Amino acid sequence: MTSSQDTFLAAAADLLGPRGLTTDPDLLSPWLTDWRGRFTGRTLALASPGSTAEVAALVRLCAEHGVPIVPQGGNSGMCGGATPDESGTALLLSLRRLDAIAPINTDARQVTCGAGTILETLHHAAEAVGLRFPLTLGGKGSATVGGLISTNAGGTQVLRHGSMRALVLGLEAVLADGSVFSALTPLKKDNRGFDLKQVLIGSEGTLGIVTAATLRLVPAVAERVVIWAGLTSLQRARALLLACEDRLGGGVEGFEVMPASSVAAVLAYDPGTRAPLTGDYAWHVLIEVVADATGAADLRDRVETAIGDLFEAGLLDDAVISSGEAQAEALWRIRESIPLAERAQGPAVQHDISVPVERMPDFVDAAVTEVETRFPGVRAVAFGHLGDGNVHFHALAPKGSDGPAWYAQTGKEISSLIHDRVVEWAGSISAEHGIGQLKRDELERLGDPVSLALMRQIKRALDPHGLLNPGKLVTLAPVGPTA
Amino acid sequence: MTSSQDTFLAAAADLLGPRGLTTDPDLLSPWLTDWRGRFTGRTLALASPGSTAEVAALVRLCAEHGVPIVPQGGNSGMCGGATPDESGTALLLSLRRLDAIAPINTDARQVTCGAGTILETLHHAAEAVGLRFPLTLGGKGSATVGGLISTNAGGTQVLRHGSMRALVLGLEAVLADGSVFSALTPLKKDNRGFDLKQVLIGSEGTLGIVTAATLRLVPAVAERVVIWAGLTSLQRARALLLACEDRLGGGVEGFEVMPASSVAAVLAYDPGTRAPLTGDYAWHVLIEVVADATGAADLRDRVETAIGDLFEAGLLDDAVISSGEAQAEALWRIRESIPLAERAQGPAVQHDISVPVERMPDFVDAAVTEVETRFPGVRAVAFGHLGDGNVHFHALAPKGSDGPAWYAQTGKEISSLIHDRVVEWAGSISAEHGIGQLKRDELERLGDPVSLALMRQIKRALDPHGLLNPGKLVTLAPVGPTA
Repeated sequence: MTSSQDTFLAAAADLLGPRGLTTDPDLLSPWLTDWRGRFTGRTLALASPGSTAEVAALVRLCAEHGVPIVPQGGNSGMCGGATPDESGTALLLSLRRLDAIAPINTDARQVTCGAGTILETLHHAAEAVGLRFPLTLGGKGSATVGGLISTNAGGTQVLRHGSMRALVLGLEAVLADGSVFSALTPLKKDNRGFDLKQVLIGSEGTLGIVTAATLRLVPAVAERVVIWAGLTSLQRARALLLACEDRLGGGVEGFEVMPASSVAAVLAYDPGTRAPLTGDYAWHVLIEVVADATGAADLRDRVETAIGDLFEAGLLDDAVISSGEAQAEALWRIRESIPLAERAQGPAVQHDISVPVERMPDFVDAAVTEVETRFPGVRAVAFGHLGDGNVHFHALAPKGSDGPAWYAQTGKEISSLIHDRVVEWAGSISAEHGIGQLKRDELERLGDPVSLALMRQIKRALDPHGLLNPGKLVTLAPVGPTA
Repeated sequence: MTSSQDTFLAAAADLLGPRGLTTDPDLLSPWLTDWRGRFTGRTLALASPGSTAEVAALVRLCAEHGVPIVPQGGNSGMCGGATPDESGTALLLSLRRLDAIAPINTDARQVTCGAGTILETLHHAAEAVGLRFPLTLGGKGSATVGGLISTNAGGTQVLRHGSMRALVLGLEAVLADGSVFSALTPLKKDNRGFDLKQVLIGSEGTLGIVTAATLRLVPAVAERVVIWAGLTSLQRARALLLACEDRLGGGVEGFEVMPASSVAAVLAYDPGTRAPLTGDYAWHVLIEVVADATGAADLRDRVETAIGDLFEAGLLDDAVISSGEAQAEALWRIRESIPLAERAQGPAVQHDISVPVERMPDFVDAAVTEVETRFPGVRAVAFGHLGDGNVHFHALAPKGSDGPAWYAQTGKEISSLIHDRVVEWAGSISAEHGIGQLKRDELERLGDPVSLALMRQIKRALDPHGLLNPGKLVTLAPVGPTA
């Protein structure tokens, strides 16, 4: 530790008090490795300010001392975006204490809450007043509002409600110089110049630190029906989605696809699950249809009629319709257990990709075949949000592979190949997980040069000294062979 | 004309050919005054490139010669954002020739078109394939897609479908150095770093010049019902909106309020209109409820039942329900004729303002009273998009006032007063029309200093020489007393 770092830490301790700053290795440790276990870093200290004013004062202090800052919410990101590097020079800044939820405005259907508010807590708060925050994902028990905004998180309800960006009405953030961008005003329409909150949403803490937000709520779900269908191809799944939307309109809120192998893996891994269908199908589809109070009464009738008609029309091969909440939960459990069931099968490289929605079935077929042909023994699976043109494309190492060695060589080659193909199909190498440190170099390699230059211009303008989450998303200057 | 300007014009003529460049005063004239007639400027020439590549080459040429650029679409903006200043040093850059519409992707419900595409043409193109572009406004016969994106335009369908920003999936724009930001890929989900298109949307041509876009379409309207209701107060209108949304869900697409005086002005001005209701009501409300094919069959029944119940519950005082398209059109005609009927009554200052939705009724009451008390003879009216918390607040000069003198003195005082009040009520001085040159100084006076500093940082980063639409929205350095 340098004497300058000592001076900084003493000043930070004065500012934040004993509850707000620690260097205790036991307390730091859980926050220094990302939840997928791919990255581990070191830090000067863990700061946990208790107010926006404390965040602002701390960021000013960091600016004075040239101390880099790594903001962190629930530490459940997928790309190492909240994990510091190994230099140990950065301050880890937790927003978790900023978890206050203001009284919900039920009239305007809006809620203002701190960046540290946990997603599941927000769900409960909205439900308590007959409303709903319509974004959910596997990490809801740890993911925070600030992290969800900073990564523009997606999840299983994007089809109807959009990603996090679509749900943010107002934002408060601390900028690199410690000034506070304060735009929590929940105006539905506001064209006073550049929409600055849009610049901060999805910027992964590299342009500012989100401290609070005003979010959009929707009416509570009064009734839901889950359909599980078996199909012979992913092309048929896409056709089924369009037909469902034609028949059931905006009520189709989730449309998840899974290959037979993923379903089999879950059934083998989780004794609490059982096969929804008796026949063998190459693809399985989970469809969630919901209604608020205005459409609840006849939802089940409408779904049953529609599914019957679609079956008659040959659009699906077999299906079950949930008879109640217990069965709906049981069907969702199969979908949600895929990541864990797969993890139990050994090393895998994962890709969160999108291509234009109508091309996704052909892309998956082509990419699965190419990966399995070029890398014998590797099994490729794609599952997820077909309605958004977004799947999680995983390649599982051959049985008995050594994890680290396989990741370093074959895993990397597979990722490069998949990313190359995604770009050729006009897609994105990060549909919903962001860039972080995991995909920074791939973005540099494959990103549009004009876009990368623009990102750097904005980064330099808002964080000229590069102190906000350095090494994540985009660097101040190009790295690698082009530097 | 300086010799440097001569050199520039010769090079531009070479680049664009005779169809692409003119200095003929008769051809220039219609484009040098904004449509509200508030601003008139001069220009070096009118350039009309025929392709994105030509726009890019022209912008590079301007950068080399230090020639400012004023981009222009249909010249139907409300704030003088597309009118050059009086120096005559800027090039007027029309995007109108970039009006190609690519074959519509009906599967993914997307359309890619040039910036010069006229809104009404886009409506027709979507309708021809059974789809709809769900944004409309009075200037639809001249407003272009590029202008709508650059101003993040609103209109009468924002309640359900959002402003232009919510409809843009992909964007192409030429940046200040002539490079082309090319992101027309219509991905539903893409988290590859900062969402750069969001920076360009609503930036009024000060950060880049929009040349093309990929836009979201929705299913065609299969059935619509228009309701015209009379109410004793604006507070009751707000309560009626919430009740309608509870009963009719997402089908409520328009909710427009008008004071009795505006309706009376239309009836006097337009002999083709007649009063929808027989009684006298302080406020009138137009509600549009639509359904696509999935909900068309029982829409009328549902609306009639709901309105009957709301009447029984005392939520409205009187109402008519349109019996067909002709009557629906007739009711909309009253709402749409307000601006023209008002113009016929003499000089007026207009304010496009928003406050938090639930506070709008009280705001209107307070502001009307204050303006009419402090400025005897002035009549204040507010009408428009109550559901978005956005009204057009107009103050009409006393009968017989001299326009220019009244604008310069009383009109200006009224505008200052209204804008001050809007800020006190946590609102916006520009809800949907943008800033342009009309509100630039008011934004400077009333805007949040941190937001203004951020805008300038972004402006300097993307347009360091200030050549893109200078004098609009935000200047490179602070102006006025704070300079």
